[in-house]
Amino acid sequence: MLPPIRQIATRQIVAVRGKALEVRDDRIVGEAPLEILAAGPGQDPVAVAVTMRTPGHEAELAIGFLRTEGLIDGPEVVRTEVGDARHLNQPDDTILVRLSKSFDPSVVAERHFVATASCGICGKASIDEVAIRCAPLPDGPVVSRGVILALPDLLRVAQRAFDATGGLHAAALFTPAGELIAIHEDVGRHNALDKLIGALSIAGMDTARGFAVITSRASYEMVQKSALAGIGLVAAVSAPTGFAVRTAIEADVTLVGFARERSFVVYADPARRLTTDEEWKS
Amino acid sequence: MLPPIRQIATRQIVAVRGKALEVRDDRIVGEAPLEILAAGPGQDPVAVAVTMRTPGHEAELAIGFLRTEGLIDGPEVVRTEVGDARHLNQPDDTILVRLSKSFDPSVVAERHFVATASCGICGKASIDEVAIRCAPLPDGPVVSRGVILALPDLLRVAQRAFDATGGLHAAALFTPAGELIAIHEDVGRHNALDKLIGALSIAGMDTARGFAVITSRASYEMVQKSALAGIGLVAAVSAPTGFAVRTAIEADVTLVGFARERSFVVYADPARRLTTDEEWKS
Repeated sequence: MLPPIRQIATRQIVAVRGKALEVRDDRIVGEAPLEILAAGPGQDPVAVAVTMRTPGHEAELAIGFLRTEGLIDGPEVVRTEVGDARHLNQPDDTILVRLSKSFDPSVVAERHFVATASCGICGKASIDEVAIRCAPLPDGPVVSRGVILALPDLLRVAQRAFDATGGLHAAALFTPAGELIAIHEDVGRHNALDKLIGALSIAGMDTARGFAVITSRASYEMVQKSALAGIGLVAAVSAPTGFAVRTAIEADVTLVGFARERSFVVYADPARRLTTDEEWKS
Repeated sequence: MLPPIRQIATRQIVAVRGKALEVRDDRIVGEAPLEILAAGPGQDPVAVAVTMRTPGHEAELAIGFLRTEGLIDGPEVVRTEVGDARHLNQPDDTILVRLSKSFDPSVVAERHFVATASCGICGKASIDEVAIRCAPLPDGPVVSRGVILALPDLLRVAQRAFDATGGLHAAALFTPAGELIAIHEDVGRHNALDKLIGALSIAGMDTARGFAVITSRASYEMVQKSALAGIGLVAAVSAPTGFAVRTAIEADVTLVGFARERSFVVYADPARRLTTDEEWKS
């Protein structure tokens, strides 16, 4: 089992800036599942939702969620109880919202919850299911530092052709040599990645041939979806979450973050897919 | 019923830069629900997921989603069929993925889909339910242009105290005079807003007193959640989606986007909550 997830975790990373390479500690935002339950007086708790969230303020999140989903009005909240573990920031966190009036379980049942492509956690029956279940990744691809450094420019040029609105996330697959294989965009980062993988699937292309670049942050779902498609290297333009880093380590995925102007940060490279090429050593 | 949603919509907006004010057309990214179904030979279609997505590449999205959720391997896809309407980019879009082998409905049922705070669409039984259902908003707050222009700086100062990782979204409530009431953060933008509203609910505070500022893009769920909490003005640091703009108009929410360095864009102000103060007129 993984260690507790705090709101901010400290991890050793490799920061690359041009030809300079620095190994140092970095602070990474925490991410962990929380199960929200509700119960009226003398009523068994009703499981309402599981969400990936930044640990902290669990009562606020649970009450806010119930209210903004129209399930409670607010004043009927009596108190909240943290689940069995009795300590926060564990992967098995649960929070029970006690209400002064009865909570109708059929409200949850009637809404006939369906999965959504905009969140990787949907469809998990319980927190136990929030885990990687995929075949071992194939070896490779092996990518040089120079290719990663050139990515932001490549991606910007590719995206400019599609996104005239400034409101889209992009997910692209590149060859290890840095050639664009395909790019897809969507208002949802998970959708962009799903479209990319679906397009390659339709084309009968082996997604394991290349590596993925995403314009968003790297949450755990992005790593999980990539791993399920056999993609061994994910480079994100923005920050990763702590859960994403640990998912990458567990699934043997190389995870690069903050791939920006001539710099990037390596958060995980368990299978050593980033080469220390000649330029790197100099 | 709302008009069709295209990938990119053109809308008249009001762009504010310092004291300058310009009314012009702007391109806004589309956002619309898609229902994904799957069926094997001679099998009734199984509803798998509803997602909010940018219209376009529905087959790629559906196949990629089924694959990255581990529900299909890829080669068994025979073809995809767009739903009854037979034209894409309608709010009632559905896509059916025909497979060469049987699709097990119990896979969907067993996963016992639960809602998640990371996506506002979860828990909707069908596309018909993707709509605002909330009491009419109270009048106000009325906010001046100068307050909106000062927001990015105020938010940056407030957020710096919390976010040492660069990976968090923030949601804050401000008074009409621009004073910070509360701020909450999370790796998920919906969670940040839920935490904010939950915190105010716990404190017994009337959320309708202030207006919301979010560091993310404004998707329709952010507008819907705000409206459900009685918040009549939402200012986003990044872009809104087309569905968010129309949701704002339907729910009488004032929607501001790209609230950045001394500039912002007004996408919807049906209840006229933005004042044309003296400075504005000059």
